[in-house]
This record gives sequence, structure tokens and C-alpha cells, in this order.
Amino acid sequence: MPNRIIIIGASAAGVDSALAARKKDRAAEITLITQEKLAGYSRCGLPFVIGGQIPAFKNLIVYPTAYFQLLKLNLKTETIATAINTRDKTVTIVEQAGTTQNLQYDKLVLATGAYAFMPRLKGIEKQGVYSLRTMEDGEKIDCAVKEGAKTAIIMGAGLIGLETGVALIERGLQVTVVEMLPQILPAMLDADMAKNVQLLLTEKGMRILIGKTVVELTGNEKVTGVVAGGEQLAADIVVNAFGVRPNTKLAEASGIPLGESTGIKTNTQMETPIKDVYAVGDCAETTNYITQKPVCAQLGTIAVKQGKTAGVNAAGGNTQYNGAIGSAVTKLFDTQIGVTGLTETTAQRAGIEVITGTVNSKTKAEYYPNALPLKIKLIAEKASQRIVGVQIIGGEEVTQRINAVSLAIQKQMTVPELAKADTAYAPPLSETWEPLITAAEIILMKFR
Amino acid sequence: MPNRIIIIGASAAGVDSALAARKKDRAAEITLITQEKLAGYSRCGLPFVIGGQIPAFKNLIVYPTAYFQLLKLNLKTETIATAINTRDKTVTIVEQAGTTQNLQYDKLVLATGAYAFMPRLKGIEKQGVYSLRTMEDGEKIDCAVKEGAKTAIIMGAGLIGLETGVALIERGLQVTVVEMLPQILPAMLDADMAKNVQLLLTEKGMRILIGKTVVELTGNEKVTGVVAGGEQLAADIVVNAFGVRPNTKLAEASGIPLGESTGIKTNTQMETPIKDVYAVGDCAETTNYITQKPVCAQLGTIAVKQGKTAGVNAAGGNTQYNGAIGSAVTKLFDTQIGVTGLTETTAQRAGIEVITGTVNSKTKAEYYPNALPLKIKLIAEKASQRIVGVQIIGGEEVTQRINAVSLAIQKQMTVPELAKADTAYAPPLSETWEPLITAAEIILMKFR
Repeated sequence: MPNRIIIIGASAAGVDSALAARKKDRAAEITLITQEKLAGYSRCGLPFVIGGQIPAFKNLIVYPTAYFQLLKLNLKTETIATAINTRDKTVTIVEQAGTTQNLQYDKLVLATGAYAFMPRLKGIEKQGVYSLRTMEDGEKIDCAVKEGAKTAIIMGAGLIGLETGVALIERGLQVTVVEMLPQILPAMLDADMAKNVQLLLTEKGMRILIGKTVVELTGNEKVTGVVAGGEQLAADIVVNAFGVRPNTKLAEASGIPLGESTGIKTNTQMETPIKDVYAVGDCAETTNYITQKPVCAQLGTIAVKQGKTAGVNAAGGNTQYNGAIGSAVTKLFDTQIGVTGLTETTAQRAGIEVITGTVNSKTKAEYYPNALPLKIKLIAEKASQRIVGVQIIGGEEVTQRINAVSLAIQKQMTVPELAKADTAYAPPLSETWEPLITAAEIILMKFR
Repeated sequence: MPNRIIIIGASAAGVDSALAARKKDRAAEITLITQEKLAGYSRCGLPFVIGGQIPAFKNLIVYPTAYFQLLKLNLKTETIATAINTRDKTVTIVEQAGTTQNLQYDKLVLATGAYAFMPRLKGIEKQGVYSLRTMEDGEKIDCAVKEGAKTAIIMGAGLIGLETGVALIERGLQVTVVEMLPQILPAMLDADMAKNVQLLLTEKGMRILIGKTVVELTGNEKVTGVVAGGEQLAADIVVNAFGVRPNTKLAEASGIPLGESTGIKTNTQMETPIKDVYAVGDCAETTNYITQKPVCAQLGTIAVKQGKTAGVNAAGGNTQYNGAIGSAVTKLFDTQIGVTGLTETTAQRAGIEVITGTVNSKTKAEYYPNALPLKIKLIAEKASQRIVGVQIIGGEEVTQRINAVSLAIQKQMTVPELAKADTAYAPPLSETWEPLITAAEIILMKFR
């Protein structure tokens, strides 16, 4: 009898689970279940459709329906998994037509993702208040812009908040971002680095209010603005970007345990404490590779890797996911911002004493025209001299520097080792002394 | 008494020696000797002045005379070191005015660089035949173009040959490159990767003849072309780009031993077998980090690192240079080409059995507009599964991918480890699955 694999969720983690399982076991009966109309589209691309860089939402569909058919993946869209019985190994689903069904599984993968967190603010239910998590969310915001919205307030200065804010400015709106914490990008950057990004965004016309709490949304049926930090701010639309939370309702109701991070508990096989049940992506807890503490990483790249791990294992293989380093990057206007590993703040929180080295440099040789700025903050553990993180803000070539440091962290490279690294140079492409190496040398001087 | 450090050569390796020595010992008496009119300019930038990207040759001066004065470095330009007596610890110099002097040293650093190799071809002495090693060489080529040269032949399809060829095309010349070996960039790429670059260059109008030997340069006083592969090729100018050789004449005449690679023998301190004499940069032999065999790496980044090592040690410090991985990158028209570690060819020559993985990918998410092509050939040792090299051709973000793999090689990362790497992703900046990881996965499948 074929191995019956059910995957709940058909975004990055779910689809990559399915693909990996299919690759491992050509005969397995693989079913993907999603509430959404579409499976396998890129959520990360949504702000860039709103911004106009990508022509249409449908362009974000990475895996069209035909692809699922080709791989004999049984995709059930607009279908809700309402219950899991881990003893009988069944999943209860309700299809669009309202029909209820019990599906039998041998292996179950929970890829239920995350949802946009909505605080209980007065007025949050008003028309004109949006989140940006699904394609439908994106279409609603796009529609509001097309219908003439001229001003927007973004609640929250995390990645999604700022990406959406930039997109709306690119569409001609006046945008105000309100952040409760005293800095933007609090989950990604240290305050000193975040200040630089804030300045760049402000120069491009984004109004940013930090350290201000939204206490109320104003308006009758339709939102007219927010009250934040004692100020009444007017806006045609309000975007809720307070962050996302792991979608664990179904798991909890089915007795599948959550971990400290509030994500579904998993081991290195991405299996939950319940045998034959895996959890992957934004709903799953994993281990931080550096601190070895539980974490809910909630990044696309981590979702696909976890998905692949669970898919292989569910299909009878044996592979491990060894923890998240947490590499992330974004582009806001023309500036690229990246991070990997720990920030100075998260290191302190984890009780790790660090030494940092910050350099201001350029992306080409000093004398080469059109070199773009590059700022690097490298972070090393004081005791071991190991590199534990980096934050980079620059005009180009940020992503792969993040990846280089991520590899260094993975292999426990020390600062003296990085200072001796063999790097590539050509005047139109880099400086003779790679700025990452200069940052390592700055730390070395502080060690002495 | 102050430590007397003499450095022969004032390009990348020599100047970085001096700077490192000064940093270590503020009282040292540091003398730099160069035959050239200028010290501390970027040789690597020369093709980009000819191409017109950089406005003037003087822009290439990274360290102006005032900088040497500021750091109390005694710079002697247009000065030739004619002899070294390693017993008496003296260097004989002839200054521009013709005066001869014996300088006493406590520590000597040889940074004599390399020279453009000129084969004994009939007619090579004719007017209109140029090399591109010094600023003077560059000025001569620039002058020939300004005087109306319309066609050029480049002898040699290495880095300098192709960069110069591209620069001349950008200046409006018709350019033919003649390469003796059956591929372009033979020291940098495997034949399969080189083919792709050849195609790109040909599409941009460069005529490339591979497997053709230049047997003669034609013309009376002034060159009119070359005879190669039985064909008479006409050109207004001919550029000799057969490659460079370590400049070791002075060392040899002074009894300072050369190594197998024909560079000056050194240990990890960059000290030659003669006590208190160091050798760095293009004239020096070092160890290949992967094969542990002697090599003359001749790259700017390696020169500055070796220079720094010798400078610190000459000034009483103790630091090591642990060998060259060999990371290099160039930009030819809009294409970036990079390499680090071993190619399939150099691995085979070193007796290392390898498995390779090649991927064709893009530099942004599939659905993001203006993604540029990216081709990666990753190379791993079969026995150890360790990564030993990579070659990348792409529209952007090549340099830092090279650096990432270089760090991986330095830390002996295996292919399974790279396949699990934690990478950063954003639609305008990368694909969800980093192509380096995909390349690792292709190799993994071949291991099984």
C-alpha cells in the first residue's frame, strides 16, 4: 500500500515538503490542503506587486496547478482542516462545498504557517484596515490604492511594515509608519544600524514615528486614521503590520504540543513529539543554531529547508534540520538590508558577551565611479572569538555577504580566521580589502 | 636604534608591508624603493581607465605622496635596487640622478612584483606593440587609441588580455584576441565554463581565435598585425598579454632561493630562507591552501595580505599567511566572472578526484523583473566530500558568492553541510533556494 502523506498548508514549507516527499517516493499518495484559493505562491513578493515592480499578483504563482498535477500531488484548495486525530491518524477536512471528510494518513506534515497578529485595538475592525499576509490581502490594498487612497498609516516598522510602506510611497501615497518600540526593524537590526535605515527612509519621504503606541483607530465605518502618542494621524488606509504569530490552533486542539517559542515543538527531523506528525515553516519551533535555544524563525528560506527535511523523512528518508541561523535580507527603495545570526541585542538577551566591529565602506574600489555605500556591523562572541552575527546596509552585494557570514557561523569561524580570508577583488566589483575583513580586524584590535 | 626596514617595490604588496610595519612600530625607519614614477597606484584599474569608466590614470593613485610623508615612510621613486648583500644586510640603489648608494637594513621585504612575459617572437620589438602592466604602459595604449588606432590584436586570452580587449572595444576599436590554448581564461576557468564567456564576448563584438599560436608580428618599424594559425591578421596595435612572470632577477643574483613555482621561496611568515629577508606579492611563492603545493598566486588581494604579514613580522610582530585559496573576479562588459579554489582541471593536475555540480539560475526570484543569469560550477573532492572550488558567471552578485565559497573552503566545509546552509532571500535580491545550495545538492546526488 502506498505511503499516505497529508500536508496541511500549501505555501513555501508545505509545497517543499510535498516536492521532497515526491522526489523520495514516487508512489506515495500525497495530499496538500489549503484554505486559500491558490497554493504555492510567493508571499514575500506581495509588497513588490503593490509597489508596481511585479506586474500582477498572479505572477507570484511559483507552482501552477498543472505542476501539482504533473507530480501527482493531490491539491485541495479552499479546504479547511478542522481536526486531527493523532491516534486514528485522521484529518477532518471541510471542502468548499461544505462536505466534511475524514482522510487517513500515515505521515502528517503541519505547515499551517502564521497569521498577522491583530491587537485588540479600538476600531481595528473598521473598513480600510488591512493586513498583508495573503494574496487576497494584497489585492485588497492594491484595490484601495486604485480607488484613490492618498495617505496610509502602517502600524509596525518590521520587515513587512516597511516593505509595504515603501510600496505605497512608490504608488504615490503619503505614508506614516508608527512603531511602538524605540527603533525600526527591531527584530532584525540593532538600534545603531536601524537609525541609518530610518534616515534613508525619511529622506525618501516616509514619515516614521518610533516609540509611539497606536491606541485607537478613528472613523465611523471606514477608518480615517489612528491616535498614536497623543497625536491624531489621518489616513485613507491603515495597514496592520504588528508582526505574525505561528498558526497553531489546529495543533493545540489536537494535542500536538507547542514549545517555549509558541511554535509547534519539533526535533531535528522536524517531527513533533507525536509520532509521524511533522511541523515545518512559520508554525514550527526550531533551535537557534548559535544559542541552541528554541526559536520560531519564520523566514521563507528556513520554511523551505524545514519543509524539505520533513518531506524526505515523511517519505521514509532520514535527514536533519540542524537549526536556524536566521539569515534575512530586504530591499527598501535602493537600499539592501541584511542580517544573519545574532544582533548585539539578541546576543545580550541570550547571555552572550560580544565584541562588535563596524565599518563604513564602498561596494567598488575607492576610485571607481558609482561605488555605493556599504555599512557592516560584525558581531563576535568575546570568549570564543567566534563570529555570531552580522548586519549589513548597502547599495548592492549585501545578500551574498550575509550568506558568506552565515557559512562562517555554521562552520564556527573565528574572527582571526575571517581576518585572514582569501577574497576576490576587481575595481568595478569590490575593494581590495573586503570590508568584512576590515570589520574582523576592528574586532581583533578590541580583543587585544 | 630604530629598526631599519627596506621594502623593494611600492605597489600593492610593498605599500601594504610598509603600512603594516608602520602600524606595528611607530619608530621604525621604513624605506620604499620603486623604479616607477609613482607608488601605490592600482594596476588592476588600468584596463578601466583605457575603457573610459575611470576618467584618468591619476585616479588610480590610492596612496598619494603626502600619505607616505604623513606616515613617515621614506619613499624613493625612480630608484633601482641593483644588488642585495644579505651578509652585510645592504641594498645598493641607483637613484634617478645616477647616484649610487648602499642602504643598511635590519629587515628587507622583496615586493618586486611581476613583469609582462614577452616571448621571443619575430617582430615583437616593433612600434605599436604594448603590454599592460604599469601606468606608463596604460598611457601608451591610451595614446595610441587617441592617435587613431582602429584595430587591435590581443595576444593571450587571460584576465588582462580580455579586460584590455573589452576596454578597447568600449573605445570603439575592432578587437581580435588570439589564444594559443584551446580555451579563453585558461588559468581561471574550466573549458565548459570558459565557452560561455567566449560566447558572451563574441556577441559583444570581440573576435576570439582559440588554439592559434602567434608566430610572427608583421610590419616594418611599426607593427601592422600578426601571423597566427596560418592567418595574416591586420591591426594598428598589438597588445602582449601572454601573462606575467615573477620578477626575481634581483633575488636570484643575491642568492635568495626560488621555489618550484619560480617565485621566491617563503615560509608562512613570508620570510625567505635567508633570515630577515621577506618576499611578498607577485614575486613570492606561497602554498596553495587546498593542495599544500607551492604556487605563485599573483593576485592583488593575496599581495596585500602577504604584504601585511611581512610588514608586521619585519616590525617585530608574529603573524602568519597560511596559503592562497586563489579567489579572483573580473567584469567583462556586463558579465561578472569569478573563481575560487581549484577548477576541475587544476584539481585533476593535483591528483584530486572531484565531483562537480553545475546550475543555471537567476539573480532574483523567477517572477521578479530584470533577473540576470547566473551559472555556477561547484567542485568537491570525491573522497572527503569537501568543497574545493567554484566558478561563477553572472550578471551580478558574483564576487560575494566567490567569497562565501572561499570561506567554506577555508573552514573545510563539506557538500552536505553547504546543502544545509542558512541563506538570505528577498525577491528582488535572490531566489528562495540559493543556487550555491542547488549546486551542492546536484553534487550530493552524484555522491549517492
